[in-house]
Amino acid sequence: MSKLLEEFKNYLHEMNQYEHVVTLLYWDMKTNAPKLGQEAHIEALTHFSTKSFEMSTADKLGEMLDGLAEESEFTALDVTWQFIVRRMKRDFDRNKRIPAEVYEAFVRAQAESGNAWEEAKNSSDFSVFAPHLKKMVEMTKEIAGYTDPGVETYDALLNQYEEGMDSATIDRLFGELKQELIPLVQQILAKPQPDDTAFHAYADPDAQKKVQWMLLDYIGFRRDAGAVGETEHPFTLNFSSKDVRVTNHYYETEPISAMFSAIHEGGHGIFEQNVNPEYDNTVAGSCCYMGIHESQSRFYENILGRNKNFWLPIYDKLGELLPQFREISLDDFYREINHVRNSFIRTEADEVTYCFHIILRYEMEKAIFRDGVSVEELPTLWNQKMQEYLQITPKNDAEGILQDMHWSDGSFGYFPSYLLGSIYDGMYLDTMEAELGSVDKLLAEGRIAEITKWLNEKIHQYGSTRTPKEVIEAVCGKEVSAEPLVRYFKKKYTEVYGL
Amino acid sequence: MSKLLEEFKNYLHEMNQYEHVVTLLYWDMKTNAPKLGQEAHIEALTHFSTKSFEMSTADKLGEMLDGLAEESEFTALDVTWQFIVRRMKRDFDRNKRIPAEVYEAFVRAQAESGNAWEEAKNSSDFSVFAPHLKKMVEMTKEIAGYTDPGVETYDALLNQYEEGMDSATIDRLFGELKQELIPLVQQILAKPQPDDTAFHAYADPDAQKKVQWMLLDYIGFRRDAGAVGETEHPFTLNFSSKDVRVTNHYYETEPISAMFSAIHEGGHGIFEQNVNPEYDNTVAGSCCYMGIHESQSRFYENILGRNKNFWLPIYDKLGELLPQFREISLDDFYREINHVRNSFIRTEADEVTYCFHIILRYEMEKAIFRDGVSVEELPTLWNQKMQEYLQITPKNDAEGILQDMHWSDGSFGYFPSYLLGSIYDGMYLDTMEAELGSVDKLLAEGRIAEITKWLNEKIHQYGSTRTPKEVIEAVCGKEVSAEPLVRYFKKKYTEVYGL
Repeated sequence: MSKLLEEFKNYLHEMNQYEHVVTLLYWDMKTNAPKLGQEAHIEALTHFSTKSFEMSTADKLGEMLDGLAEESEFTALDVTWQFIVRRMKRDFDRNKRIPAEVYEAFVRAQAESGNAWEEAKNSSDFSVFAPHLKKMVEMTKEIAGYTDPGVETYDALLNQYEEGMDSATIDRLFGELKQELIPLVQQILAKPQPDDTAFHAYADPDAQKKVQWMLLDYIGFRRDAGAVGETEHPFTLNFSSKDVRVTNHYYETEPISAMFSAIHEGGHGIFEQNVNPEYDNTVAGSCCYMGIHESQSRFYENILGRNKNFWLPIYDKLGELLPQFREISLDDFYREINHVRNSFIRTEADEVTYCFHIILRYEMEKAIFRDGVSVEELPTLWNQKMQEYLQITPKNDAEGILQDMHWSDGSFGYFPSYLLGSIYDGMYLDTMEAELGSVDKLLAEGRIAEITKWLNEKIHQYGSTRTPKEVIEAVCGKEVSAEPLVRYFKKKYTEVYGL
Repeated sequence: MSKLLEEFKNYLHEMNQYEHVVTLLYWDMKTNAPKLGQEAHIEALTHFSTKSFEMSTADKLGEMLDGLAEESEFTALDVTWQFIVRRMKRDFDRNKRIPAEVYEAFVRAQAESGNAWEEAKNSSDFSVFAPHLKKMVEMTKEIAGYTDPGVETYDALLNQYEEGMDSATIDRLFGELKQELIPLVQQILAKPQPDDTAFHAYADPDAQKKVQWMLLDYIGFRRDAGAVGETEHPFTLNFSSKDVRVTNHYYETEPISAMFSAIHEGGHGIFEQNVNPEYDNTVAGSCCYMGIHESQSRFYENILGRNKNFWLPIYDKLGELLPQFREISLDDFYREINHVRNSFIRTEADEVTYCFHIILRYEMEKAIFRDGVSVEELPTLWNQKMQEYLQITPKNDAEGILQDMHWSDGSFGYFPSYLLGSIYDGMYLDTMEAELGSVDKLLAEGRIAEITKWLNEKIHQYGSTRTPKEVIEAVCGKEVSAEPLVRYFKKKYTEVYGL
């Protein structure tokens, strides 16, 4: 190892210590820390994020990256370290342009805004959140101006979450979906709907936790490299492939919610647990492409979890843990988990109308960043779009614009990733069935481990070393298209609803 | 504020950020982190402990402390900051003498030793732990040589956990106890013992968690400044008075264990939550005297929790949460929680034989540090002393010498604190009853909040600003003596066992 490379690795090691505790502070704030303890956590989080940011923009790092990028050094690196140097150099040049005090203010504002959002949501009072949201929008614009000068802000944001993606492509993909799904949903909603009363009976939260673990174990989330916490809004975070955390919520009369959150976050978690461990604690490890990440959580949640065959081998176990499911047939359960209805909450939506929830948010974000719509106008715009796509109006902002945490920490441009994930899933499913045979059959025979193995090999192991375009090309051998997803929806819902 | 004081406060603020994440890393290692995630946590913990240690021994800090100790600066400080400067100067001079590499090696060895102890205990294999224990003994001696040159090692260790305490005083106090308690326990054990079968029936761990919260709420542990985690060995830690964490374990057939651990750790927690918040994040905040700390956990656990009247207002609630207690009368429950028997596990021992568990450990520690008994000889010595004091021999080391975590992180000299705590409790009880009237009556009437308030005012609020001697003097107005504790035991057990 060259002296320079060794020095560089030591530098990364120290930077990683800061990132490690920032991740932990965030985890603890959300899962454990009491109300009065939040402030000290925010302070420490700001302190160490700033340290990490300072290191990531220090001249010293720039010099090391320049040195390693020189031919004599670069050609001596293995392919992983070549990726790391190239990627870090790109990010260094971007981040270097953000003034340190702007970044520090942003981190602090993020944490405060997150708490304000929680309070606003609990009291369903948008005005508590509005000034923070305004600040997040302004700061996001300001920072994008530094990182991506000359790029239209919203395209820059989209590209941050899904490299290579822009609104022209998304307009095309979402346009295809709208055209096909609006009539499909109309057809579905014209059919008789199942009675769902039995699914909203009381379910002991402690038993729901046991169901969650049964599901996580079943899909292959590893306990020796994973943990679960409880939060209002489920999420996944990871320190490395060796320590991946997911969270869940347990609504007393909505047991299905925790089940599908477990499968969804479990999908994210399995991805991270299976990234090549050699990439741990570098920009090659973990997957930074949100569309690709969501494609995995949503593959588990929807393509697998909402398939009747997924439940065949484990439905009896569910009944043992939550006795009310003993009284419900698997057929009825299957209908319910694919019950299409126009509803308010994105994370609780069925697979089809979910698309409209994302399209709405995508259009809202374009309105904010492209059309300059003000924060004050957003609740009204939200409600108008809910009417347009779902023909319903939220009775308050908690079940409307305040439902998601994403905007509270400035994650504008993230939402489209969810739907891109589903679009990718349609494409993966085609390829997987061509290679492994019927997914229905694999699931029915309890061979889900083979599906997970396929995803590990085709997608997970690469972490961030393949861009979304490269993943799709390598796995499916073609350009991204919404056609397979639409075909999957039509086939599935024709059967479920007898269209 | 003088420029120097401001600079000093900024310095402390940065040091506190390191200590904050060290505390959090420890908490998370014990309560959340998966097996494969431990290593990275140990690495970060070592990194930040070292940073904090570097700051606590930096010349810069020494200069600031010297400056602040000068009359012109010192007299301008308020009494709290005078305490802080004086205390930090003393600790600085002590710690400064420990070479940084020795300290770093110690922190790493502590973490590794803790994990080895856990493994050794789980497999009941002392040999797994022995090399780590040896290392902890050697390093502890080495460090005491630096911090307290010229002081006999074991006295130096005792003084670290309970300032002003030495083995001459402890020999006197424990001697009084031995003389009185050996015949008392013989009398008790000659009496017929109650049947305890009903107390070892299955108790749902989730229900035990609910009982734990019922008890924590009842004694006054505040949820907005507290959290609970699950660990093999219960403990309490705190970031400040605003964020205090306790842990517990839930044995499926030993529900009483989690109840009394909750009350014990809750007592520690209430102490920390009620320290003057102005002391937060300084050496004045938190209580660093372990005997005084244990006096609070043990006051709640024993003096209050093992009193029948404590349960009068809440015994029905216990039956609601754990139905088997509906079938057990309060009288039978009371007898069981004061069931005296010679048993193996310290933390599960009754109030009286508990004293022997501590005396045994105190004598073991004297043997290690004063008589140079080797680590290899310790299991045999343990078993001999168990025979001597309790007339029983552990069937393996897991229920013998491996049962406690204390030695695994080098906390030699800590054990006597538990019994000093009980000795103090006997004295507090006398004073409390003189000032508030009968504790039986207060408890029976559900007025435990008045007891907590008394302890808050008399003890908790002072944090570390009063030494043990000063606390006892201020609260009881006399020298420490074991006589009140012995009197309390005799009165109580004469009644319980009809002696």
